Amino acid sequence: MSERIKGELLSAACPLPLANHQQIVLGHGSGGKLTSDLVQKIFLPAFDNPYLARLDDQAVFELAGTRLALTTDSYVVTPIFFPGGDIGRLAVNGTVNDLAMSGARPLHIAAAFILEEGLATSDLERIAGSMQAAADEAGVSVVTGDTKVVNRGKGDQVFITTTGLGIIEKPVAISADRARPGDKILLSGFIGDHGIAILSQRENLEFEGAIESDTAALHTLVAAMLEASPEIHCLRDPTRGGVATTLNEIAARSKVGMEIQEREIPVRESVKGACEILGLDPLYVANEGKLIAIVAPEAAAAVLDKMRAHPLGRDARLVGTVVAEHTPLVLMKTEIGGSRIVDLMISEQLPRIC
Amino acid sequence: MSERIKGELLSAACPLPLANHQQIVLGHGSGGKLTSDLVQKIFLPAFDNPYLARLDDQAVFELAGTRLALTTDSYVVTPIFFPGGDIGRLAVNGTVNDLAMSGARPLHIAAAFILEEGLATSDLERIAGSMQAAADEAGVSVVTGDTKVVNRGKGDQVFITTTGLGIIEKPVAISADRARPGDKILLSGFIGDHGIAILSQRENLEFEGAIESDTAALHTLVAAMLEASPEIHCLRDPTRGGVATTLNEIAARSKVGMEIQEREIPVRESVKGACEILGLDPLYVANEGKLIAIVAPEAAAAVLDKMRAHPLGRDARLVGTVVAEHTPLVLMKTEIGGSRIVDLMISEQLPRIC
Repeated sequence: MSERIKGELLSAACPLPLANHQQIVLGHGSGGKLTSDLVQKIFLPAFDNPYLARLDDQAVFELAGTRLALTTDSYVVTPIFFPGGDIGRLAVNGTVNDLAMSGARPLHIAAAFILEEGLATSDLERIAGSMQAAADEAGVSVVTGDTKVVNRGKGDQVFITTTGLGIIEKPVAISADRARPGDKILLSGFIGDHGIAILSQRENLEFEGAIESDTAALHTLVAAMLEASPEIHCLRDPTRGGVATTLNEIAARSKVGMEIQEREIPVRESVKGACEILGLDPLYVANEGKLIAIVAPEAAAAVLDKMRAHPLGRDARLVGTVVAEHTPLVLMKTEIGGSRIVDLMISEQLPRIC
Repeated sequence: MSERIKGELLSAACPLPLANHQQIVLGHGSGGKLTSDLVQKIFLPAFDNPYLARLDDQAVFELAGTRLALTTDSYVVTPIFFPGGDIGRLAVNGTVNDLAMSGARPLHIAAAFILEEGLATSDLERIAGSMQAAADEAGVSVVTGDTKVVNRGKGDQVFITTTGLGIIEKPVAISADRARPGDKILLSGFIGDHGIAILSQRENLEFEGAIESDTAALHTLVAAMLEASPEIHCLRDPTRGGVATTLNEIAARSKVGMEIQEREIPVRESVKGACEILGLDPLYVANEGKLIAIVAPEAAAAVLDKMRAHPLGRDARLVGTVVAEHTPLVLMKTEIGGSRIVDLMISEQLPRIC
């Protein structure tokens, strides 16, 4: 492990009690406990309204009789080009996915660029091109945008904020607070690819077998799943903070416990190896083209079949069950037969992963 | 003038021919000629679609029989707190205004934060509070959001991207390509306040008479104007690049000429004085609570009356006329009786003004 990664992991480890943060630390951007803290202490009290209070990755509201979803995300990933994608493709796919996770059909994207003085215009051109390619594949249009430039040393090449608008055409009710005891937990495929791909590129690490980001638009996968059954209760793409953080968030919001099986969670050998060398747990590593679905027990088999029939869900598995016990803990049966608590990520494993 | 401003003005002066920019310069964020260049050469070819091609500050589209407007802007202003406002208030008002300039009623805001490690959490709290105050005043809700954190030295305290969704309820057709010869040019009040307020704060300059940012939400002013007449052809808030750049954009898009009267353009004595000292032209200085309306000649008097009856249009004036001649030049009759071409700003007068 490079000295820089060690430093980042150390600085992200955050020795102070959460309540005492006078300053923003990298962990506040982790998607884990500290991000949740910031949302609970600063943003929710300030922007008090029922849409935001849902705490899903998108707002859902009705407008002139039509149900719409709106979502926004800033992308600050470094490096901006990486195996399997770049910041532009990530920004479009990520926003498409945040819409899809509400059951919405993605329609329009707004894109705002913050450029650092000195960025190569050819890099910007390449990024815009890959955004359009991703938009074409996902069937959305980039309909409006903005460009700002900051002085050299006050940004980092390019940050992109994408906001998506989608329409919810089916009578679905998907939200992180809808998991019920007995529901089945489905995972759409191999985990950890995106995080490890970024890290390898950033640190010039070479692992056996090339590891590429799994960035992909998941809306057609979700549409196929909803064809099988409307009884999909929660949908999330486990990005920052990984599968562990996403399951913990759903458990807390739904006031349930969860039990997952380690042997059912698909991790590539190459990712497993990289995680061992780096001291990372794949359950906490970011994904960009995977989803977790919490599904009514009677619908699980049909939904899983539809997932496996879709190219982006080929390796989908039933990985666990929602339970009424040990609320809101996520327990994992390990491969060697033990059981451990899978906690919310406290700080950050790897900064600027998306 | 401080050495830093001199340096910024010099570096923004951009000696290279426009076509030859291999790297992003500050001027690409000016809202002037270089920004337009970037849009024309990189973004329009990449994201080719009719919504974006309108080149207005918002996309307008129909969804399930309802006309909607969507707009996005990143805010990178420095300093983040300034006389008359802060980055949070600016972000909400700016996005409300970009919706209002299409005749839309602003409804929902998405807010994405890029925080620099080390930002005081109390500053973030203050900014979130002032965003909510601005949202309350404008009658909009911040319904969804995102937070990312970048390493120290890779950002600058806080950048905010706000995206707004609004509904267009009246049968209006407002766009920068709708100015017609004979139309009247209305300006809602004193120009240059925002830019000079930021500059004074940034450089610790003191001018006679405190100069405050004019940041304000203009949607109720627009609603009042539309009550007077639907014959409002173009609406723009002259932010980056100021009144001169906005008029040039409209003239080019509508393929018309314009004639404006210098003596009719309201500039505070304090702003005039500051501009003289700094070598700036108030016509190019950013505004955040003003609008320019291009109105059918028969509607001009009624619209102007409505503007003057509104607190944010009290000092509104008829400042010029759209003409069929000298397309797409904006000519200004000066106070001393001469005439000069008011060109598009080539580069940037002052970086990071919004």
